Amino acid sequence: MQCTAFDTPQADALRVQSDALVTVSGEGQITAVIARDDPRWATERARHAAAGSLRELPEGSYLLPGMVDLHVHAPQWPQMGKALDVPLEAWLQQNTFPLEARYGDETFAESVYRPLVQQLLANGTTTAMYFGTLHDSGNRVLAEQCLRQGQRGLVGRVAMDEPSQCPAFYRDVSAQVAIAETEAFIETVARLPGNAHGLVRPVITPRFIPSCTDALLEGLGALAQRTGVHVQTHCSESDWAHQHVLERTGVTDAQALHRFGLLTRRTVVAHANFLTPDDVALMAQVGASVAHCPLSNFYFANSVFPARSGHAQRMGMGLGSDISGGYSPSMFDACRHAITASYALDEGVDPDLPAAQRGRHDARIDHVFALWLATAAGGQALDLPIGRIEAGQQFDAIVVDCRTPDSNVCVWPDIDSPADVLQKIIYNATRSNVAQTWVQGALVHRRAAA
Amino acid sequence: MQCTAFDTPQADALRVQSDALVTVSGEGQITAVIARDDPRWATERARHAAAGSLRELPEGSYLLPGMVDLHVHAPQWPQMGKALDVPLEAWLQQNTFPLEARYGDETFAESVYRPLVQQLLANGTTTAMYFGTLHDSGNRVLAEQCLRQGQRGLVGRVAMDEPSQCPAFYRDVSAQVAIAETEAFIETVARLPGNAHGLVRPVITPRFIPSCTDALLEGLGALAQRTGVHVQTHCSESDWAHQHVLERTGVTDAQALHRFGLLTRRTVVAHANFLTPDDVALMAQVGASVAHCPLSNFYFANSVFPARSGHAQRMGMGLGSDISGGYSPSMFDACRHAITASYALDEGVDPDLPAAQRGRHDARIDHVFALWLATAAGGQALDLPIGRIEAGQQFDAIVVDCRTPDSNVCVWPDIDSPADVLQKIIYNATRSNVAQTWVQGALVHRRAAA
Ligand SMILES: [Zn+2]
Ligand SMILES: [Zn+2]
Repeated sequence: MQCTAFDTPQADALRVQSDALVTVSGEGQITAVIARDDPRWATERARHAAAGSLRELPEGSYLLPGMVDLHVHAPQWPQMGKALDVPLEAWLQQNTFPLEARYGDETFAESVYRPLVQQLLANGTTTAMYFGTLHDSGNRVLAEQCLRQGQRGLVGRVAMDEPSQCPAFYRDVSAQVAIAETEAFIETVARLPGNAHGLVRPVITPRFIPSCTDALLEGLGALAQRTGVHVQTHCSESDWAHQHVLERTGVTDAQALHRFGLLTRRTVVAHANFLTPDDVALMAQVGASVAHCPLSNFYFANSVFPARSGHAQRMGMGLGSDISGGYSPSMFDACRHAITASYALDEGVDPDLPAAQRGRHDARIDHVFALWLATAAGGQALDLPIGRIEAGQQFDAIVVDCRTPDSNVCVWPDIDSPADVLQKIIYNATRSNVAQTWVQGALVHRRAAA
Repeated sequence: MQCTAFDTPQADALRVQSDALVTVSGEGQITAVIARDDPRWATERARHAAAGSLRELPEGSYLLPGMVDLHVHAPQWPQMGKALDVPLEAWLQQNTFPLEARYGDETFAESVYRPLVQQLLANGTTTAMYFGTLHDSGNRVLAEQCLRQGQRGLVGRVAMDEPSQCPAFYRDVSAQVAIAETEAFIETVARLPGNAHGLVRPVITPRFIPSCTDALLEGLGALAQRTGVHVQTHCSESDWAHQHVLERTGVTDAQALHRFGLLTRRTVVAHANFLTPDDVALMAQVGASVAHCPLSNFYFANSVFPARSGHAQRMGMGLGSDISGGYSPSMFDACRHAITASYALDEGVDPDLPAAQRGRHDARIDHVFALWLATAAGGQALDLPIGRIEAGQQFDAIVVDCRTPDSNVCVWPDIDSPADVLQKIIYNATRSNVAQTWVQGALVHRRAAA
């Protein structure tokens, strides 16, 4: 593909590859990114043109890495953008759990998961790490939809058996059953027809410590250690959650997860706002990562996750939409909320406080850091070769078209540098700007022309 | 028009008028909203159907009041979404002032203002209160574009003459000249061909106290008192601005504006984050209003404007995009940022603080309050009959289509109530969902069909 590509090899480094040639293998891997002034550029271009395999992006279109969404509650898709004005307890017990309980019905599951995968691809999300439900059938439908539509999906069979926290109508009958069904689901995903390359992967998914018994957490930890598959859960999201785990286990959430064997190089914990310095060090040492969900933090986390300082301490992280605790399916929105949240943390928020008592002034991130979080950092968190436009990475990418009629990305060619264009994209792109979505070298979504 | 209409007569009251008949006079005023169960409904509908003047919104489309953007820096349109990663001083002196200085060139002005008005209409902004520049020609072009494209526009000739704050290349040569040119611009707007109904109005616009001499502020205040036209300026936006005015004038920004005669029933001050309780009382007493710009606050205001408590103290307010201090032209984005900002203020942001020291717990607003800010409250701030769907109001409205192919508003008819649909619209609508924009009974924008 002949294109101008933007990516972020590091948190604070934007790379612009202007009018480059991105070559891709039959298996969907990037084999080379040939710069315009490289002598091979013209010959490679001619070769592909002759073979009919040359794609050229039009003026005003740019290649970006595909977006990696580290935290999606798939069954909550139908309630995305509603019930955010009710208290958390009502949100969970009256809205969320009754909805999640419906996914034993395969027809209902398909009626939700088909459009979910489709819409995330349309928004530019090439990889999603999903919480499913307790239901083998529903989770299988989700995995199949990812495969069928070509989205890189990490799908978790949710486990939750603690009677004091989970309603009777939506709870594992025992730790043993939850562990056995998690193990069976790992097998199911491995054997899915068409999944030989591992586009879809299983995830061990205790909902969070409060909703799981020790027996369940121990069993899932052992399974994680034995199989090496990914792990996802929630960790120290709110004052309540952090305190609850501290009181129940005597240690912090991260340390408890570690004890249970659930903190691995392939673990992603959502939120993690209230990590202690020791927790951060532990996470960094283990190589576990945080799914930073800035939008849902505003609603449910009593605080902003300090991404900048966590990164400075070498803790892995990426971005999550947290659908439907977060209302937006767009990772561009997640980028934008990550920035505003970081400014709020940096500057403080209450004008009635003296300036000296407001803010912590170590927290700001910019649009480059945000894009890094949503792409390269997400790939690193998942231990997958995605998130950058360079040789050896999978070709998971999106084409952003700044000239579509519905675009709020307003480029002024005579005054905007390429870096300015990228900034305008991060700040104003919507799904209307996502013209194409590619996963592992395959075009999996193309926006309908206006 | 036969439609289901959403509006917010009060800050916390959503009104759903289901399958109602909205009748509009030849002058563009709403003459009646006839409920489905009103005996007149069928006869009125039949009469319009026979006359060929019946419009029916399709399933999945809804009527909302047009969006009122109380704070737009029109000349900054080309830099929307860029240079937000540089310090304020550089942003002003190296980016903003040099750009604003170009609008003496009428051709350049038209090349910016034509798409600006067009794009704001496409985003659903039916009324915009604009800061122009110092240039009579550029400001006239902006007013003409509003008239030509049918946007309700309030256009201000910016005045700024304080040498210590304004660069030599972009500064009024004297207070006298700035006052005379402001007065002349008021005349110009009144005499614009086609403006007999006052669709476009002039605004007295001292940039902010720091960039104006006392003589200028006094002269503009006298002009405001004499003519009764609208006034706009910035007020107590940041620690720096608030402190600077306090030191220079001995009183707060709001009190100084009041002294200069600049605080009237038709005054809109942008930001106002650092108002004292006395300032709030003064604003409420005078009937002046705040343009709350939640997005740019994150970047430039060191804090969040406390909208909820200001409203409780009966101060007028509405929403502003603050382009390009804010990067988004969408008032749906402004609604969403107003909500997240209010949650940040309410809950606090720093997880390293004890819970008891975090947040102020009087600040949350929800999606209904946000829609009210962007519509009815904006109309009230401007002292104009806009912002609600009811008899006596101008028919300034938008049609939101939830079924457009690019929609992230995902409605589930079997589980979403009309109020849920409205919540989903506020949280996920983009310009792609704005199918039609109406101002004073005229269809001024229609989205190109996909
Ligand atoms: Zn979650
Ligand atoms: Zn402003």
